[in-house]
Amino acid sequence: MNVSALIAGVLAREPRAVARAISLVEDGDEGLAALSAGIYERTGGAATIGLTGAPGVGKSTLATALVRQARREGRRVAVLAVDPTSPYTGGALLGDRVRMQEHATDPDVFIRSMATRGHLGGMALATPEAVRILDAAGYDLVIVETVGVGQAEIEVAAATDTALVVLAPGLGDAVQMAKAGILEIADVFVVNKGDREGAAEVQRELRQMLHLGAALPWEPPVLETTATTDEGVDELWLAIARHRAHLDATGSLRVRRHARTLQEVEALAAERFRHATVRALAADGDLADRLRVRTIDPYAAADELLRRTANDR
Amino acid sequence: MNVSALIAGVLAREPRAVARAISLVEDGDEGLAALSAGIYERTGGAATIGLTGAPGVGKSTLATALVRQARREGRRVAVLAVDPTSPYTGGALLGDRVRMQEHATDPDVFIRSMATRGHLGGMALATPEAVRILDAAGYDLVIVETVGVGQAEIEVAAATDTALVVLAPGLGDAVQMAKAGILEIADVFVVNKGDREGAAEVQRELRQMLHLGAALPWEPPVLETTATTDEGVDELWLAIARHRAHLDATGSLRVRRHARTLQEVEALAAERFRHATVRALAADGDLADRLRVRTIDPYAAADELLRRTANDR
Repeated sequence: MNVSALIAGVLAREPRAVARAISLVEDGDEGLAALSAGIYERTGGAATIGLTGAPGVGKSTLATALVRQARREGRRVAVLAVDPTSPYTGGALLGDRVRMQEHATDPDVFIRSMATRGHLGGMALATPEAVRILDAAGYDLVIVETVGVGQAEIEVAAATDTALVVLAPGLGDAVQMAKAGILEIADVFVVNKGDREGAAEVQRELRQMLHLGAALPWEPPVLETTATTDEGVDELWLAIARHRAHLDATGSLRVRRHARTLQEVEALAAERFRHATVRALAADGDLADRLRVRTIDPYAAADELLRRTANDR
Repeated sequence: MNVSALIAGVLAREPRAVARAISLVEDGDEGLAALSAGIYERTGGAATIGLTGAPGVGKSTLATALVRQARREGRRVAVLAVDPTSPYTGGALLGDRVRMQEHATDPDVFIRSMATRGHLGGMALATPEAVRILDAAGYDLVIVETVGVGQAEIEVAAATDTALVVLAPGLGDAVQMAKAGILEIADVFVVNKGDREGAAEVQRELRQMLHLGAALPWEPPVLETTATTDEGVDELWLAIARHRAHLDATGSLRVRRHARTLQEVEALAAERFRHATVRALAADGDLADRLRVRTIDPYAAADELLRRTANDR
């Protein structure tokens, strides 16, 4: 399939074309620039929700519950499960996906795991383009779920309209989350597994921690759910809607999205530059040798590399 | 103090100059390039150990125990505690530092927390320069301790000669660590708090997980310690020495260090380029506007930005 056929397929809402387009993003395929150009003007319609938290807090079950809510309102939903590259996680994530089987035959639900191959910074750059593909394919709501709470995953979750941070008793407690820098990105906190011992304690700890922070125009609510029985999911759905209404009313939605786009452009340009420097450094044995014998230091070498890469273009 | 005086102070092993030089690194000060150039040829002598693991596993107590071992052999030691920027961690980290008081009056021990201000990628770039300052100041051993197991912290710990990954019963168990991608960087595994219930279970789980990986030229040993009572610390010290001997015997030390330097140079060049693009994008309202009205897509905008930044130099 060539890229123009792929673009047509995505815009015609064909699931196979959507899946293939996301694979292009995963691979960092050469056709990506053309794909991006072909769909961009048809994007911006989808609302996005981020779901992040430690492994085991029940993010996938929550995502399934949110899909159910969206379907009740007749909205088309996509779930993008973003997986950092690690040989160990593949199995676990596939296991999670199985729980989504309830929606497997619904043509208005699209579920997809996405891994990026090889590059550390890749996930943060790949996810926005994958979200745009789903957006262009007419999904009204895109739920971005991360596997854990690594730096890149936090960035990915933060780059949505409404970021949910999920905790559970005994897993990813508030102090650990604070240390990971994740509290700052939450628009809504969810304490899942509310039927387990310690749920009240997690909430209390979390509320204490939040009071240490500065007052904000939007005060992130702390909700309790038991996603396996749908307990509290209506209230969560309402909180998400309230956050969206707040974004619309204050004009923050447009501001935040535009800022995100500019950041993405900067990061994309930086990534391309980085590839150019890697090539330049590999081709220049002399600079590497001077570093080895310490006649040039890393800062001076970086400057020289910057000069050279710029002039090569 | 000007930069040449600072360089002279560092090379003369004055603790105040060393502390101030590290502050320059934290701040990303303009004098950094000159500092780097002034000390680089006097570096390369120090051995480096990384200490990483979830908060609460006892990394600081282990670091203290390792300092004690090094001092027994008459080696000068520095501990660099690397803290991701978060308003919440300051207190916890300072608390940890207090436990190091045993070495506070020893002139051959230097202990320092380092935070980087503002930039996400900053820690990974700042740490190698801080380590070189300590190296140039004649510390034979530099222990780099991270606060938690975020992506940047894993990168920082991996950029040492010998990376220790610390676990403890009930905290940062093997499955969580695997998901964080941390197992891959370990040269030595330490199960600390060996006197607690569940220590044997953590070891068992870890060994199972390791058997899933590919066979390696160096098989990372799994050791048990109780750092508070020095239990197992002699064996850990021996394992670190064995790993170093392996690096020396196979020539990996030089290869790994050189590869790290090249990576650092690439990252430094990329960071500088990124600053240039941020400035260029801020100055160019037109490109931002075209993104807003979707007449240019992020990939095309990145290309245009790359072209423009290169030509501006």
